[in-house]
Amino acid sequence: MQGTPEVAVLRLGHRPGRDERMTTHVGLAARALGADRVILAREGASRAGTIEDIVDRFGGPFAVETTDSPRAALKDWDGAVVHLTMYGLPIQDVEGEIRTTFEAGTPLLAVVGAGKVPFDIYEAADHNVAVTNQPHSEVASLAVFLDHLFEGEELDREWEDPKHVVVPQSEGKQVKEP
Amino acid sequence: MQGTPEVAVLRLGHRPGRDERMTTHVGLAARALGADRVILAREGASRAGTIEDIVDRFGGPFAVETTDSPRAALKDWDGAVVHLTMYGLPIQDVEGEIRTTFEAGTPLLAVVGAGKVPFDIYEAADHNVAVTNQPHSEVASLAVFLDHLFEGEELDREWEDPKHVVVPQSEGKQVKEP
Repeated sequence: MQGTPEVAVLRLGHRPGRDERMTTHVGLAARALGADRVILAREGASRAGTIEDIVDRFGGPFAVETTDSPRAALKDWDGAVVHLTMYGLPIQDVEGEIRTTFEAGTPLLAVVGAGKVPFDIYEAADHNVAVTNQPHSEVASLAVFLDHLFEGEELDREWEDPKHVVVPQSEGKQVKEP
Repeated sequence: MQGTPEVAVLRLGHRPGRDERMTTHVGLAARALGADRVILAREGASRAGTIEDIVDRFGGPFAVETTDSPRAALKDWDGAVVHLTMYGLPIQDVEGEIRTTFEAGTPLLAVVGAGKVPFDIYEAADHNVAVTNQPHSEVASLAVFLDHLFEGEELDREWEDPKHVVVPQSEGKQVKEP
């Protein structure tokens, strides 16, 4: 998001067939809620086009990347790594520390898995963070995490070069071409 | 959630094959983030067992219901109806009013669609609310909406009769049986 250090989202462990829409939603939620790019690992790379199509239609900047080596992407990240997992420390207990580092200028990589995440990811992360210690959804966890990180300011993010702009309505739909 | 008016989530428009995991994640995110029950319309009812299994293992109370008539569920709701849609009014502009009504004792039904939502749903809702006016994810929208509604207090929700309890860890996984 403009005016903040970079935020990227690394999507691990996409299972073909099962996770198609989840991976798309991880990428779209990352874009909508203030991240600057998403990195799709291995099989999840098949969803890149769908996300790029939304960037093309609704605006950017937002980058979609793919990697054959998510561990390298994680290890080479020059900044803080936050792995979202139901086994981690409660977000309400650690978000202050994470936000302080972020606001001091440190880029942040948020990591979300699909199926079982290998143990070395837990070790490689600077923070293992739980949006509740309950099983639910990596999309929901990512959304709440980004909204807390940006303290709601991402909701007012503006977009460059959109072909379509939604005009908010109390009822119905309005879309304009700027 | 204990101590608040009832919150239910109505899941519309499940498309078999395509939306299996999305509907499961809607139900699990609803449970984890403070709702009291989820109502699955039509084809989405196939996901009830998966959500109930999590309630059985990780605790409740949380109800899973199914309906053949989502419009009746919506029309008969005795309280406020909030439809989450990218075409609606920005959450940051309307959440104060919604929360005031809720905290005064009015139950709330949050409605999330999958594919295209029929126009009469927009008309039947008291509020059409956008978690950004960008296309992303009904799971992400629901998560941010519930977190704003409860102002983060849902993150401390306690659970009755769990068979498994996660013990938060800075690294690794710990699950105990209480």
